[in-house]
Amino acid sequence: MSAISPVLDRIDADLENSIERLFSLVRIPSISTDPAYAADCRRAAEWLVEDLKGIGFDASVRDTPGHPMVVAHHEGPAGSPHLLFYGHYDVQPVDPLDLWDTDPFAPAIKDLGEGRKVITGRGASDDKGQLMLFVEACRAWKSVHGSLPCRITLLFEGEEESGSPSLKPFLEANAEELKADFAMVCDTGMWDRETPAISVALRGLVGEEVTVHAADRDLHSGEFGGAAANPIRILARILADVHDENGRVTIPGFYDGVEETPSQILKSWEGLGETAESFLGEVGLSIPSGEKGRSILELVWARPTAEFNGISGGYTGKGFKTVIASEASAKVSFRLVHKQDPVKIRAAFRAFVEARIPADCSVVFHRHGGSPAIQLSYDSPFLTKAKQALTDEWNKPAAMIAMGGSIPIVGDFQNMLGMESLLVGFGLSDDRIHSPNEKYDLSSFHRGQRSWARILAALTA
Amino acid sequence: MSAISPVLDRIDADLENSIERLFSLVRIPSISTDPAYAADCRRAAEWLVEDLKGIGFDASVRDTPGHPMVVAHHEGPAGSPHLLFYGHYDVQPVDPLDLWDTDPFAPAIKDLGEGRKVITGRGASDDKGQLMLFVEACRAWKSVHGSLPCRITLLFEGEEESGSPSLKPFLEANAEELKADFAMVCDTGMWDRETPAISVALRGLVGEEVTVHAADRDLHSGEFGGAAANPIRILARILADVHDENGRVTIPGFYDGVEETPSQILKSWEGLGETAESFLGEVGLSIPSGEKGRSILELVWARPTAEFNGISGGYTGKGFKTVIASEASAKVSFRLVHKQDPVKIRAAFRAFVEARIPADCSVVFHRHGGSPAIQLSYDSPFLTKAKQALTDEWNKPAAMIAMGGSIPIVGDFQNMLGMESLLVGFGLSDDRIHSPNEKYDLSSFHRGQRSWARILAALTA
Repeated sequence: MSAISPVLDRIDADLENSIERLFSLVRIPSISTDPAYAADCRRAAEWLVEDLKGIGFDASVRDTPGHPMVVAHHEGPAGSPHLLFYGHYDVQPVDPLDLWDTDPFAPAIKDLGEGRKVITGRGASDDKGQLMLFVEACRAWKSVHGSLPCRITLLFEGEEESGSPSLKPFLEANAEELKADFAMVCDTGMWDRETPAISVALRGLVGEEVTVHAADRDLHSGEFGGAAANPIRILARILADVHDENGRVTIPGFYDGVEETPSQILKSWEGLGETAESFLGEVGLSIPSGEKGRSILELVWARPTAEFNGISGGYTGKGFKTVIASEASAKVSFRLVHKQDPVKIRAAFRAFVEARIPADCSVVFHRHGGSPAIQLSYDSPFLTKAKQALTDEWNKPAAMIAMGGSIPIVGDFQNMLGMESLLVGFGLSDDRIHSPNEKYDLSSFHRGQRSWARILAALTA
Repeated sequence: MSAISPVLDRIDADLENSIERLFSLVRIPSISTDPAYAADCRRAAEWLVEDLKGIGFDASVRDTPGHPMVVAHHEGPAGSPHLLFYGHYDVQPVDPLDLWDTDPFAPAIKDLGEGRKVITGRGASDDKGQLMLFVEACRAWKSVHGSLPCRITLLFEGEEESGSPSLKPFLEANAEELKADFAMVCDTGMWDRETPAISVALRGLVGEEVTVHAADRDLHSGEFGGAAANPIRILARILADVHDENGRVTIPGFYDGVEETPSQILKSWEGLGETAESFLGEVGLSIPSGEKGRSILELVWARPTAEFNGISGGYTGKGFKTVIASEASAKVSFRLVHKQDPVKIRAAFRAFVEARIPADCSVVFHRHGGSPAIQLSYDSPFLTKAKQALTDEWNKPAAMIAMGGSIPIVGDFQNMLGMESLLVGFGLSDDRIHSPNEKYDLSSFHRGQRSWARILAALTA
């Protein structure tokens, strides 16, 4: 009898309990970007440590200048590989709260009909649900075999949703402890509900906050309108200038390091059958906003973007206030691909903005995260084994896809610890991560646990 | 002995009490644009009615669908003219509250040194301080002479800062009662601290709120960036398109009805010695933002503008959220001059916006107030008399100026009641009306009362 069969049975038998454990974790509002939730972030870390100790991990909460890390170790048979699994226990803010159908921190099972059930709540998918898959796979393995098939280290971060300021220093300070043969990162998605996927490319990210300052106070727009600089007008001009009429970013040097995607890759993506209408129709849209003449999957997987994530200035309450504001702000992010350099992109953007600030006004920049894109090899041995394990579980070949979002840790593992990463995840595109009514399919939660158990078996066979 | 001398003495002697009365009124947070302060608006109206009854006015709170009006009547000698005095008891919101040095609703006297004292608080200038000037002039006259020199009607509105939605219906329903020989409106300013002024032109106003809707939910900018329409980007493009590189408004038909200001008027304005540096230097700026090649006074007094008064969309809290928002909003206002038609301007703006909305997105407009510009005659007899009265009080000829802001009531008086208005006010350009730390100079409050007493005397001599 194979080592894996009883583990899968054990996962099936323990499903109800594993759901309860995820609920306990989701109930903790560990919003990392808002300082008001700092204690909750720590509470989530402590919850994980207790749970991992119960499995037999040597687990601890590790302080950082920000939210703590969770690190856990478990030995494996002599000669077995050493695997590092990474996830994050922090979650996105929940505003606008009034758009949630249920309390984001009161997780529940919701029956969508036609046999589809989902787990609702902030973090149910991103990333609490995803990280618990691997924990549950380990728990089942340990309970069946009394051991794990290889040496395993877990690293759970609490600042992924707020730019991971403490991550690099932590990896640097603990490189010896954390360096493994390779890493597994579970923060990505399936191709669709039936098709598992392995991600081999990730866009990088540069985040910037721009605040334009004009007059030294708010002004009456009757008295000063037409005379005084209006920071909203200045900011609107800057943002409007960022794209040309074909959706290309106009910042000088922005496309340096961007490569054309090989035609065979573009063809395999075409084979997935996604169209602009199908991709965007899900969220009520139909027309791609990016560079003209490229497929929707190329746009989100292999082309860089500039997006405006937030803007504010002047009077935004009810009614009207005839004011010219003293300042206006925007949060801007760039998704990077291939060899684009985050440092150069940030500098080029700042120069682009500064060139558009009138001489009597000023601008202040605030840096939010930066990471290059990741391109993994399509044919490493562990990728091949993991692909087979996924195919066995889902009875469908795993797709080799790319991801529009960034997972900076993958670059850090590569650059700082010399590890490649295996990017397998079970999120779905309708999980509404970062939005109201986040959910995680129960099938993702259940078969995701089974998938990781199979991957562990395949990699250590 | 003239009728006016003892009245002026009485005003001087009663100054301390008149300050206390203004304080009582300023303490009531009658913010009309925010429904949370509706009861306070009513309280301010009731306070005025009580005060006016004490002088001998037949005063009452008059309900409207919004905040109430205050109407008060006092008879005068047979054959004397009938004057209507208008002011407003509502005030602007006070945010951002943390920029106030003192509680906006705890008025106080602040000594600025060099003999200059100011009254601080929201509404100290706009318009509670200004309207109380006339009330105090009437009180002093009545207390000295036992009567008033002419028939006087007072009309105090509670919705001036929120577009005056109830005003026109009220004027229409009460036209017989309110129609006087002419109106006096005290919501304008002096030329400078030593020079009184009469305003003969006022810009009109069109306010619009624009909300761009894109996806049916907030999206993850990694997953959807470069694919989904971003409403902030669409809005920024619209706002950026509103002005050309010379500061002219590009909306088709916008300048229809705008006249060139006669050269002798432009010359008289030049004589006032205002420069872009002096006008804007006061608020920390130096470069006019409006149409190139025009003087600063022409820009604010005789040219139309488009200003952006507020903008919001996406994540605007602390930290960063990589979201593509489902909607973004801006509050936009246009200042009108001469014969520009508010109805046409609003329609032209809406068409301009709609032409820039992608086919898979939508836009919703919300109307905020609209009024044409006002141009009064430079040489009516009551203007001439008022000018002499002001010159007597301030020992300096009153300047004939224009105002960048709009006072829609002046147009309504003209169009609905057939009355011209006399626009005299004692605000100063550094009063910070609509901004934190609003103040009113004590000299404006004191000599403003004396000025109105003198104007009453001059008009009824």
